[in-house]
Amino acid sequence: MGRVTERRKVIRIRDGAVSSRPDTLVAEEPLEIRLNGKPLAITMRTPGDDFALAAGFLVSEGVLATAYDLRNIVYCAGATVDGTNTYNVVDVRTAPDVVIPDITLERNVYTTSSCGLCGKASLDAVRTTTRWPIADTPPVRVEPALLASLPDRLRAAQRVFDRTGGLHAAALFSEEGELLDVREDVGRHNAVDKLVGRALQNGDLPLSRVILLVSGRASFELAQKAVMAGIPVLAAVSAPSSLAVDLAAETGLTLVGFLRGSNMNVYAGEDRIALRAAAAQG
Amino acid sequence: MGRVTERRKVIRIRDGAVSSRPDTLVAEEPLEIRLNGKPLAITMRTPGDDFALAAGFLVSEGVLATAYDLRNIVYCAGATVDGTNTYNVVDVRTAPDVVIPDITLERNVYTTSSCGLCGKASLDAVRTTTRWPIADTPPVRVEPALLASLPDRLRAAQRVFDRTGGLHAAALFSEEGELLDVREDVGRHNAVDKLVGRALQNGDLPLSRVILLVSGRASFELAQKAVMAGIPVLAAVSAPSSLAVDLAAETGLTLVGFLRGSNMNVYAGEDRIALRAAAAQG
Repeated sequence: MGRVTERRKVIRIRDGAVSSRPDTLVAEEPLEIRLNGKPLAITMRTPGDDFALAAGFLVSEGVLATAYDLRNIVYCAGATVDGTNTYNVVDVRTAPDVVIPDITLERNVYTTSSCGLCGKASLDAVRTTTRWPIADTPPVRVEPALLASLPDRLRAAQRVFDRTGGLHAAALFSEEGELLDVREDVGRHNAVDKLVGRALQNGDLPLSRVILLVSGRASFELAQKAVMAGIPVLAAVSAPSSLAVDLAAETGLTLVGFLRGSNMNVYAGEDRIALRAAAAQG
Repeated sequence: MGRVTERRKVIRIRDGAVSSRPDTLVAEEPLEIRLNGKPLAITMRTPGDDFALAAGFLVSEGVLATAYDLRNIVYCAGATVDGTNTYNVVDVRTAPDVVIPDITLERNVYTTSSCGLCGKASLDAVRTTTRWPIADTPPVRVEPALLASLPDRLRAAQRVFDRTGGLHAAALFSEEGELLDVREDVGRHNAVDKLVGRALQNGDLPLSRVILLVSGRASFELAQKAVMAGIPVLAAVSAPSSLAVDLAAETGLTLVGFLRGSNMNVYAGEDRIALRAAAAQG
């Protein structure tokens, strides 16, 4: 608990020069919120302040309004298979007179009966569920210079952003850097869902020779969407989370972050990045 | 359907000069995804490409993997009370041999039996549920210059962002601009939940004399969290969505966006912003 950051090895490419060093990532872990013992919601969060997070979530949903509505909040007391507590399940107990609204509001709820919810379980669920294992895909090899050219082309294709400044964008590119499709949405996950859904409708899954570029950060949820669609390369303009990197490492997904100008960080799956070529350019 | 942007009146403050003009906002509306007739998830999205969004969502969740798994997708055929279809409910029908995984995964699901899901219903739900109507709060009046000073102070208080670049931040400030609390999280909504939850635990709800500042965009969900906690002023560094502006207008929340340097846009609740003082400075 309280792991706000985590360290991972990263390959840095700076103007063609390649180096390897540890990097600090924001920690991401699932938190299951239970209400009077009943599973209510799971949110992907940065560990820490979990009781406040659970209480605030229930304020937003109209369950709690004052400190008197709250009896107490506890971590799920049971243990996991190996005897440890993950501190990823909290139970909020309300005062006797609190009326629970008749709502079933849930965020990505995978109901569990144990206290063992953890990032590892989230990784395993994706790896065992996907019909398009990335390991089975034909070899893809991408030049850093090609990756570096993609964000400008995504921005050029973003029609709505310029007018509103309020949209996330996601795009699919071919191995040769050809823009295949681009979607914008107020929700980053929605933009990716729209790309993948269109591909499914067109009979194009798995997207095994495709690069997915997202305008913002790479969370676990976005990495999950890439893996489930069989996409071998996910590139993000901003930072990845710890759990996104872990999922990439476990499934063979190539994960590139901080893709800006000719610079980028490679967090996993570096075998698909033509690093020697990059070094030769440097 | 297909309303990718919407127009709203906005008050612009540029270096102290105040003007009013229409502004283009990214549209945000709820979409309910049903699977073989059964409500599965609600996501706040930008209208358009809804069938692709639903199909892609179900790829991510392991329900669909090829075009053969999909029988068809239709908009809910029924009508709302006033006889119109909102085009905010889609039903995905799978091929006969598709095995539906044993999951109850849902995003903020308010189950409805009709086809009438719409942004207006989302607004009404917040307005009628909150225990802390903003109209009941004591008058708060904020100088634009004070608002302009807040983003730098939020950034100075962000401890983890500098190391990872991967965190959203949210902070509470007093009317006088004093930093009361700041939280960082991989999820923007989580950072706000942590602030509000801590305030509830401390007996500080409603936060009726407080300014909430968020590091990114102002979605419906963030405006909802402000309203439910009785916060009268929400300021965002980036753009608000259409539905966030509508919720602010309907509940009396002051909503400020694009808060950068001495510039900002006021989308609702301008009575709490000392505009004459700003004009005099200009």
